[in-house]
Amino acid sequence: MGYDLEMEFAVPSYQRFVLVTTDRTVVNDGKYKELQDGSTLYLLQNKDQVLPVATEENINFVPHYNTLIESGTFEYFAEGQKSLPCALAELVDNALSATAKNTGVRTIEIQLLFDRTFGKPAVVVLDNGCGMTSKQLNNWAVYRLSKFMRENSTFESERDAYVRPDPVPRSLNSDISYFGVGGKQAAFHIGDSVRMISKPISSPDVHELVLSKEEFQKKEQNKEDVFKGTILNRKPGDYSHVTSSERFLHEVIKEETGRDSFTAVVITGVCPEHIKYLKQDFSEWTRQLAHIYHYYIHGPNGNHKTDNSLGSNVIPQIDILVTLRDKPSYSMNLRKVEDDLQTLYINSAVDTFEFKVKTSEGGTVDGVLRYHPFLYDKETYPKDLNVLQAPVEEDDYENESGTMNQARGKRDIFECFWNGRLIPYTTVSEFDWCRRPNKSVLPAECYSRFSGVLFTNDKFRVNASKQKFMDLELKLKNKDTLFTPVSNVQKASKGRNIQKEFTQWLQNCNSQFDKQVKFLGFIKTVERKDL
Amino acid sequence: MGYDLEMEFAVPSYQRFVLVTTDRTVVNDGKYKELQDGSTLYLLQNKDQVLPVATEENINFVPHYNTLIESGTFEYFAEGQKSLPCALAELVDNALSATAKNTGVRTIEIQLLFDRTFGKPAVVVLDNGCGMTSKQLNNWAVYRLSKFMRENSTFESERDAYVRPDPVPRSLNSDISYFGVGGKQAAFHIGDSVRMISKPISSPDVHELVLSKEEFQKKEQNKEDVFKGTILNRKPGDYSHVTSSERFLHEVIKEETGRDSFTAVVITGVCPEHIKYLKQDFSEWTRQLAHIYHYYIHGPNGNHKTDNSLGSNVIPQIDILVTLRDKPSYSMNLRKVEDDLQTLYINSAVDTFEFKVKTSEGGTVDGVLRYHPFLYDKETYPKDLNVLQAPVEEDDYENESGTMNQARGKRDIFECFWNGRLIPYTTVSEFDWCRRPNKSVLPAECYSRFSGVLFTNDKFRVNASKQKFMDLELKLKNKDTLFTPVSNVQKASKGRNIQKEFTQWLQNCNSQFDKQVKFLGFIKTVERKDL
Ligand SMILES: Nc1ncnc2c1ncn2[C@@H]1O[C@H](COP(=O)(O)OP(=O)(O)OP(=O)(O)O)[C@@H](O)[C@H]1O
Ligand SMILES: Nc1ncnc2c1ncn2[C@@H]1O[C@H](COP(=O)(O)OP(=O)(O)OP(=O)(O)O)[C@@H](O)[C@H]1O
Ligand SMILES: [Mg+2]
Ligand SMILES: [Mg+2]
Repeated sequence: MGYDLEMEFAVPSYQRFVLVTTDRTVVNDGKYKELQDGSTLYLLQNKDQVLPVATEENINFVPHYNTLIESGTFEYFAEGQKSLPCALAELVDNALSATAKNTGVRTIEIQLLFDRTFGKPAVVVLDNGCGMTSKQLNNWAVYRLSKFMRENSTFESERDAYVRPDPVPRSLNSDISYFGVGGKQAAFHIGDSVRMISKPISSPDVHELVLSKEEFQKKEQNKEDVFKGTILNRKPGDYSHVTSSERFLHEVIKEETGRDSFTAVVITGVCPEHIKYLKQDFSEWTRQLAHIYHYYIHGPNGNHKTDNSLGSNVIPQIDILVTLRDKPSYSMNLRKVEDDLQTLYINSAVDTFEFKVKTSEGGTVDGVLRYHPFLYDKETYPKDLNVLQAPVEEDDYENESGTMNQARGKRDIFECFWNGRLIPYTTVSEFDWCRRPNKSVLPAECYSRFSGVLFTNDKFRVNASKQKFMDLELKLKNKDTLFTPVSNVQKASKGRNIQKEFTQWLQNCNSQFDKQVKFLGFIKTVERKDL
Repeated sequence: MGYDLEMEFAVPSYQRFVLVTTDRTVVNDGKYKELQDGSTLYLLQNKDQVLPVATEENINFVPHYNTLIESGTFEYFAEGQKSLPCALAELVDNALSATAKNTGVRTIEIQLLFDRTFGKPAVVVLDNGCGMTSKQLNNWAVYRLSKFMRENSTFESERDAYVRPDPVPRSLNSDISYFGVGGKQAAFHIGDSVRMISKPISSPDVHELVLSKEEFQKKEQNKEDVFKGTILNRKPGDYSHVTSSERFLHEVIKEETGRDSFTAVVITGVCPEHIKYLKQDFSEWTRQLAHIYHYYIHGPNGNHKTDNSLGSNVIPQIDILVTLRDKPSYSMNLRKVEDDLQTLYINSAVDTFEFKVKTSEGGTVDGVLRYHPFLYDKETYPKDLNVLQAPVEEDDYENESGTMNQARGKRDIFECFWNGRLIPYTTVSEFDWCRRPNKSVLPAECYSRFSGVLFTNDKFRVNASKQKFMDLELKLKNKDTLFTPVSNVQKASKGRNIQKEFTQWLQNCNSQFDKQVKFLGFIKTVERKDL
């Protein structure tokens, strides 16, 4: 059965005409049926007739669903590095933001449900934060809808614009959401389906939203709107909608009734390679997460193993718990990680030098240098176990100057934290004032015995996967950028010269802490009382 | 005037009820008017009543328009580097793909229209490639719609799936489109509005589509569909729709009548900082583009300034022309750039060593090493002018072994090209077989006198902004990866040992080309006939 195009368009049959698409494909009876509603067609005397007047054709260019699915595929990779810790970090970021206003303990649980008796493998990230209303959950799903332009209420009267948090030491403000991409990017990097389950404070309802690659594909095939979906609103504890392949959810959902608010991110379709990595390299990626969130976990002074007075009992406690449910199961608190690089730096340091940086654009940075002395026969500068760092290239050729490359070596001095969270692929090599001057009286080795940390606020920009700063070093090395030493006695006094105070500090450290025993030939046996 | 909610919902007035949103906001008469069509509401006995049954709420989560606008903001940045050459490169990529099947000269023009007498400042990239049908132009605008999943015809019968091009030397296959993001990302990185003008081969029509930030914002404010737009179909040469602020388009459009097919990308809203950079650092960014496309411009053997026999007159010629229309105007062909790093490498090399690499997954790589000899009193290894490379860190301390760090120094050996196009931020340091063995008879300096290039096909993955390979080094260093030397006499013979042949080559280079004059104390005057 075909359409009679001549009749359809009421063209007298003595008149020659063709019906073409805007691409000048001739539409014959067969093709006419294939056309979609809203197609623009031309009725012309011949296929190549020049358009007598310009025409407008309506089009639709909604981004492809790969915008959600693929955004993380490539972005978390850095040559030779594993991408999963960075993806999990996005979910921890969100949980930290969500628990920022908690009055009690802030709990973030990363559960790896790999025991097949519970159903298919799943990665769950659960927090006891503020949760999301259904409107907020809807907004969560909108790619690139950042907090700066979000309307979180249906009603204009109830919308509140984003409020920048007050400055806090080390910029540990928990405000680590920025671009509106992290959660989606991370979830689809880890698996191919994500179920968000959330209950906002003082609401009786739990909201659920599932996004899945399969669903997207099905909708595309059926020419349905890919970005239409449904939120399930239900009472807490009700798991009647959960199929047996996801029966691990029963437990998660049963526990809802005891919680005032929470969010659970449930990722399934986790590929076997990821599962293998998460199991086999458990200590590697937990160490990396402990490193990224070191100062959130341990407070502004970090993980001082011995000096408890430096522990931070002022800020509410943040527990990041990782549980592997497999055979056997085990569980750990990231606070217990003892070999992340910051822990090593802090505990091998004998003294610190603090400073503040201000850029002309309002960027503020807290800086800390730590001295790792030479003790008797070796450098105490920590080795870098952290594979997130680029490997230190060994020099193939013997270096004549001996010890000088053994401490920090060619590594950059500073690790960099943005709003309190490590940005793993940016390091800053040094500043003018902490470089060894040509005519220094101090031995060259001293200048490779300190490590450093920079804590910036979000006036410094990072890329959308929070892997790199965009222009930190440029901004810091700008001539208008101001460095001020901070001593404990006399906080951030102006007009003090940072190079002078730094050199003084370094000299102190060298004379006070470096204990070098040099054998220049046997003279006599000496008893050293300070050992 | 208010609605009477009781009447609206036909609730008997003796019954107490509240109307709430799914966020449990009570909807009173005032708020009822604010609701949008399709909102889900509950009629409950009190605001906090537990839902008797689960409900489903329809939502829409079309990505935010920032997906298009902001995608490039952060991604082209690398610490301290300028982002514009990389953004322009995306547009050149597209033009190279579009002209791949040209039979004559392939012309790509980058026009900087900064002379205010022509209207507002604009960046235009024009090519004489295949152009786009209106359907293809529509697809261009769909973010993340890659060539692998594109339907380029309205009719299923006329759709052709992506065909991978046949292998060619150096993988110069012009197939540099991949992710469906580049054009949009680049355009909105450069400016805030982009007009695509395109005429496909053998169509009488020109198609035009404008995307602009302002338009997106307006639509969002009016709660219209942000991703709906119109394509203008018109006859070539007709600029009646162009306003006077864009009168530079008159000329572009007038020239359409002489062209069988073309595409013009017209970017406006270029920020003053970009304009300044493009003008002031003209030679820097043109050098970088000449570097990125070196082998497309000069053919598989590159820019041999003297040996014309190596010039490639087999492949159709590619002209990349840059024109700055300002006061004064000037114009250049990127083929004329003489100081891009590849040109320097090629012309200071005295011999080359070629090899092929195959990975177990079908990845193929062409490799070239080039020897830059020591001549009389200095190394001829080129200095790196190319700021796209990370700066070579100077060692603060004197190096005792003298000359050895003066040639390549700490730089990585290999620059890496993907489908013939430089991926600027990935370099490969070395391979086992070209590292100096411990008991080598050759002087250490020889091992820092060669540079290298790797040409991969797209079995190796790069990130979506084509700045970095994801796992090139990992894959190349996999134990199943096979390296075979290629000599001109005996192409890619199997079973040959690359390390042996490489060492042989290096030894030859050293004995034949290095001309070292060492003054060990005056003995007598010698006349060297070879000088
Ligand atoms: N665990 C959570 N609890 C409460 N709200 C959440 C949670 N996770 C995400 N959200 C909400 O969803 C929004 C989107 O999250 P997503 O991680 O995709 O982007 P983002 O955090 O805004 O920005 P970024 O790209 O920096 O991650 C968040 O801003 C937040 O409002
Ligand atoms: N100059 C051009 N001539 C013809 N077609 C073009 C041109 N520029 C873009 N297109 C079409 O539009 C599509 C989308 O371009 P865009 O650069 O946004 O993504 P892509 O090239 O497919 O992928 P990538 O993210 O790798 O750049 C291209 O695949 C191509 O089909
Ligand atoms: Mg986030
Ligand atoms: Mg492209």
